[in-house]
Amino acid sequence: MKKAAIGIDIGGTNTVMGVVGEDGEVFARNSIQTVTGPDYRKYMNTLCEAVDQTLASLSKPVDIQGIGIGAPNGNYYNGTIEFAPNLHFEGVVPVVEFMKSRYNYPVIALTNDANAAAMGEMIYGGARGMKNFIMITLGTGVGSGIVVNGGMVYGHDGFAGEIGHTIVDPQGRECGCGRRGCLETYASAPGIKRTVFELLALRNEPSVLRNISYDKLSAKDIDEAARNGDPVAAEAFEYTGEILGLKLADAVAHTSPEAIFLFGGLANAGSLIFDPVKEYMEEYMLNIFKNKVKILPSKLPAGDAAVLGASALVWQEKKKL
Amino acid sequence: MKKAAIGIDIGGTNTVMGVVGEDGEVFARNSIQTVTGPDYRKYMNTLCEAVDQTLASLSKPVDIQGIGIGAPNGNYYNGTIEFAPNLHFEGVVPVVEFMKSRYNYPVIALTNDANAAAMGEMIYGGARGMKNFIMITLGTGVGSGIVVNGGMVYGHDGFAGEIGHTIVDPQGRECGCGRRGCLETYASAPGIKRTVFELLALRNEPSVLRNISYDKLSAKDIDEAARNGDPVAAEAFEYTGEILGLKLADAVAHTSPEAIFLFGGLANAGSLIFDPVKEYMEEYMLNIFKNKVKILPSKLPAGDAAVLGASALVWQEKKKL
Repeated sequence: MKKAAIGIDIGGTNTVMGVVGEDGEVFARNSIQTVTGPDYRKYMNTLCEAVDQTLASLSKPVDIQGIGIGAPNGNYYNGTIEFAPNLHFEGVVPVVEFMKSRYNYPVIALTNDANAAAMGEMIYGGARGMKNFIMITLGTGVGSGIVVNGGMVYGHDGFAGEIGHTIVDPQGRECGCGRRGCLETYASAPGIKRTVFELLALRNEPSVLRNISYDKLSAKDIDEAARNGDPVAAEAFEYTGEILGLKLADAVAHTSPEAIFLFGGLANAGSLIFDPVKEYMEEYMLNIFKNKVKILPSKLPAGDAAVLGASALVWQEKKKL
Repeated sequence: MKKAAIGIDIGGTNTVMGVVGEDGEVFARNSIQTVTGPDYRKYMNTLCEAVDQTLASLSKPVDIQGIGIGAPNGNYYNGTIEFAPNLHFEGVVPVVEFMKSRYNYPVIALTNDANAAAMGEMIYGGARGMKNFIMITLGTGVGSGIVVNGGMVYGHDGFAGEIGHTIVDPQGRECGCGRRGCLETYASAPGIKRTVFELLALRNEPSVLRNISYDKLSAKDIDEAARNGDPVAAEAFEYTGEILGLKLADAVAHTSPEAIFLFGGLANAGSLIFDPVKEYMEEYMLNIFKNKVKILPSKLPAGDAAVLGASALVWQEKKKL
């Protein structure tokens, strides 16, 4: 019987789950809407029912080793979701405790979604064999997971790895976190849109993006415009890459990783974003680090990445047992 | 017979060494001038003779467990000093290899001076029992040592922990590293002097510091002036604390330490520097980290700190044997 892990990714809109083999094969998939209210029990019961359905849908029996959960503001030490801005729970949700009352697997663990992505990359993806690397998730926000000496960096409180909230400019753009100028306000999908609007105000060049309102403009529109030679869209990617490269140079000065993986919507823009990130990271990096740190696309399949990442936590935890 | 470790700190001007017990007691001390030229062998021979003299000077025999060495640009993995700007060696100096040809102790290891300071704090000082903390050394430059899960962060190449070379302003002050706007150009002894000169140009307020040339002005002058109520000196400390607080907030977002220790010349200014660092670090920190991270003075005795730090490397390495 093959060994497998249940991976669950709790997102703001949907919760996806899957049963994953040690080699990353996904044996079963499922998803539910993330409907959250003040009482977490209702959501957790629905989630556990969906897990049971997923297990029941398996075509062959597997030997389940545990449950790994990725969630925004997930705290590894406490097994809780704490004050996640996009989930409407009241206070702290004891996810792992709840799951342990329903399931009896050797490992039931939770971490934040970007840490889960890092572990997915380490167990199944491009970071196999790497002991020191950083995963950056470029989506609606900017998340990060830092691996040092082959282990996740959780910090003293379980919240380490918030590179998206390092500060580019203390007087800069308003961030959802209540501060100003976080990397996330530049290097996320909304961030590149803000850059486009700054450039439309600054420049006189014609641009197809002048026809689209702020509310309607998407990162995909900017990507398409840049590929069609739109100068404002191209400059927006260049600027986004410069800011991200600058803060990744800072990240290298902290933990000196072998590679930095970029994952998520903006990373799919390929060389439009990778080229300026590499160029400016090298420019802004201390000489002892130059030409050593690889900037790589994630090797996890986009559709299953979140589930793979969450399930990877199980294999990582099993090493500690 | 008491167990002891030899600690050696190679500085730009002097090399200090000592024989240190497990509890931090220093049984013997010695120092030589750091006279370096293209051929490292001459210096290394002098160093080993001084070590032999130090051992010969012990009043009671001890059981030497190893040699720990702290040096600028010291590489833990390779046991080498690589391209240290203030030492006039040619190329890479194989310090550990050389020492191993002369001594037969179980541990002979080298790391950079700020990492050694962090280990000294962990083994003998205020970080005893802490698993996640950062040491910041504020001297002629700004060094740092990062501890995660009870171990030093060396990164993939042995050079991790260069928070002094994270960038405050890419168009800012010229740094000795060849780039611009590194934290070191603000939060070091020369950094606060540069801030004073900016403020003297910006403000019209009278200040005793207007009587001192750039070449003659020392951090000690600024400290004294601030204590005597000089407004420019006071503002220079405030600004230095703000910039350091900003970059420490970034550092917390990476590794989420329990405490950050400040060590060295500027840290001796006490509340003049600690108060603004604490205030601005809290202001610039992501909400999940607020009011959790202690900013503490080093508890190592200033005179022996470098030797204690270097010797601590021996005890830390012995845990791995």
